[in-house]
Amino acid sequence: MPPPTAALSVPSSSSPSLFPLSSFSSSNNPHVSSFCPAPTALPKFPSLSKPKTPLRNLTPLSAVSIEKETLISERPHTFLREADGGDDGSVRSRFQRMILEAQESVCSALEAVDGAGKFKEDAWTRPGGGGGISRVLQDGAVFEKAGVNISIVYGVMPPEAYRAAKAAADDQKPGPIPFFAAGISSVLHPKNPFAPTLHFNYRYFETDAPKDAPGAPRQWWFGGGTDLTPAYIFEEDVKHFHSIQKKACDKFDPSFYPRFKKWCDDYFYIKHRGERRGLGGIFFDDLNDYDQEMLLSFATECANSVVPAYIPIIEKRKDTPFNESQKAWQQLRRGRYVEFNLVYDRGTTFGLKTGGRIESILVSLPLSARWEYDHKPEEGSEEWKLLDACINPKEWI
Amino acid sequence: MPPPTAALSVPSSSSPSLFPLSSFSSSNNPHVSSFCPAPTALPKFPSLSKPKTPLRNLTPLSAVSIEKETLISERPHTFLREADGGDDGSVRSRFQRMILEAQESVCSALEAVDGAGKFKEDAWTRPGGGGGISRVLQDGAVFEKAGVNISIVYGVMPPEAYRAAKAAADDQKPGPIPFFAAGISSVLHPKNPFAPTLHFNYRYFETDAPKDAPGAPRQWWFGGGTDLTPAYIFEEDVKHFHSIQKKACDKFDPSFYPRFKKWCDDYFYIKHRGERRGLGGIFFDDLNDYDQEMLLSFATECANSVVPAYIPIIEKRKDTPFNESQKAWQQLRRGRYVEFNLVYDRGTTFGLKTGGRIESILVSLPLSARWEYDHKPEEGSEEWKLLDACINPKEWI
Repeated sequence: MPPPTAALSVPSSSSPSLFPLSSFSSSNNPHVSSFCPAPTALPKFPSLSKPKTPLRNLTPLSAVSIEKETLISERPHTFLREADGGDDGSVRSRFQRMILEAQESVCSALEAVDGAGKFKEDAWTRPGGGGGISRVLQDGAVFEKAGVNISIVYGVMPPEAYRAAKAAADDQKPGPIPFFAAGISSVLHPKNPFAPTLHFNYRYFETDAPKDAPGAPRQWWFGGGTDLTPAYIFEEDVKHFHSIQKKACDKFDPSFYPRFKKWCDDYFYIKHRGERRGLGGIFFDDLNDYDQEMLLSFATECANSVVPAYIPIIEKRKDTPFNESQKAWQQLRRGRYVEFNLVYDRGTTFGLKTGGRIESILVSLPLSARWEYDHKPEEGSEEWKLLDACINPKEWI
Repeated sequence: MPPPTAALSVPSSSSPSLFPLSSFSSSNNPHVSSFCPAPTALPKFPSLSKPKTPLRNLTPLSAVSIEKETLISERPHTFLREADGGDDGSVRSRFQRMILEAQESVCSALEAVDGAGKFKEDAWTRPGGGGGISRVLQDGAVFEKAGVNISIVYGVMPPEAYRAAKAAADDQKPGPIPFFAAGISSVLHPKNPFAPTLHFNYRYFETDAPKDAPGAPRQWWFGGGTDLTPAYIFEEDVKHFHSIQKKACDKFDPSFYPRFKKWCDDYFYIKHRGERRGLGGIFFDDLNDYDQEMLLSFATECANSVVPAYIPIIEKRKDTPFNESQKAWQQLRRGRYVEFNLVYDRGTTFGLKTGGRIESILVSLPLSARWEYDHKPEEGSEEWKLLDACINPKEWI
């Protein structure tokens, strides 16, 4: 029996949000142009280059749906297709190794600090290649819910995406472009309202060179970020967290931290509230205008910075006494987290619409959340200070 | 000072989801073509008629944003513009009176059954006309959160919406079409996991006749529905609820109940879960192919059926003893409610994107909700039976 075809198929329905026109524009506004995958690490199709034709006249792009995953009892040695050469030195292969190692080291550190909870692992493959490993720790001593997922996706992007970028002649009909995407994504929700939630995600995307458009290049990019969402501000914690991000960035380019810090503040914006969901960190997307090896090292450095950036804060806050009203405030902020993830997060909305593994995508949601009508913290209170910092992002270092 | 212009303005940004192409198609699939406003009762621009031109080539429609509301200390006698003639016999005026009366009678019945909680009222107006009244009862003896809102919106719909429907010649450039929309919307979340959540919403939409397109008619439609979302099935409750809906429908047309029951099952579909959010009821939209007076009476009958359909169930279930795990299951189902409202509900997503009154829109969210990783009720359990009925909608009467 021949192997099934590519992991993504193109159904006839159209989805307005899957390839939003904004993702093809050269917008400088990260609210609309950037993308943060859910824990399944599904990729956005990148804005390969600035389009030369007015995009409003383009045919709306077709939606993509993902074939159903198959749960497997043992994790495989690799999710790469044989054609990708297994454990060779390709960027695909080295990125896969990096995210597998990061998943391992982050989970170990979390289990150690939790003391009681253990990660449960689910691994799956997809017929057309690729797969993933979800690890979830639920109802531990320290963590309410912690998910650390990796996934590898082989798919096909509709030719329109590539055509738009290349501004191909109208009579040219290129075929679908195969792509590869890999990522690690994680959301960690502690129980104690003084211990912050952490999110991080690093991903790599690569297209094949289109066969029927001679000379058109293979494309690749990196994306990712790490950000902190506390319910209460401890300035020393936020400074520590941002310092580690800056240190990782500064090893590569002095412009990275200020640029990616702002991008993070802009991306995690709950527009209908006029608030960010938290106190930021770093975020970048579509990054391909640096040396590829340098960016692979940078993503690796960022992933390796998660434990030193976060675990010391958890150690310090996990046992702080709290009262019911502080817990309720944390739950209200978790409600905002849910609003951001379900309404704005491109990875989540992409995943929900394309049939990604739902439990892996929605593991980012907190165990519990709360919505009170017209809740307004008292001016000057600790709750108000957090809200103020979410409305008016600050420079922490 | 001249009065401000219309309540809706058209900013330069484009929103792919505001006027989804699907809403202009003649799709028979209510998942994509129907619309259920959030408690602010913001209207969808209706699919006036079947378009004659291929929609994929249309210019994407502009987004609409709503001017900031002003809270007022006393509710006005009317939210209608003076030009609408105050308390005359127009459909606008009579629909406003109907929803104000329904708000009053539903809130009275809820306060009576709650025994402790009282509704808090917020009223507001908008510079260009219209306004609303939100009533919220939070943390009562019986209700966790109950919102009953009415709103009146004067706005302007982009000419594209009308042009698309009329298939106007390309050289015709009609101006924006003023519209009027009014609605009542309500979500009632009880505390007891055996007492079901109720949602209802009734709305009326009317455009002016376009001035610069002679002969083009004024358009109007009715929409709405009432549906039940229990965490546990008591067949007698569900039968009672559906019987009242059927009775209201049958007074007008024997085809209404079966048609609107199916439409409801189809609309409240959480696609990424393959589940409905609850056990349905009735739902209809874009209804204009009956006598206008008949539909006004029908909407009134439906709104008046809320109390007899719901209050007897609450009386019966509000004090049923329950344990922690039953409460947790209710919270998980509330999580699904949040998923539906934030991801799929057209009224909510429209409201969030256009700057409606956020607290009124999101009052539909429960006080608290829960997400457990990969939760699966045991086959044959009461929880499993509910889930099964959400996956496979049943005929209850």
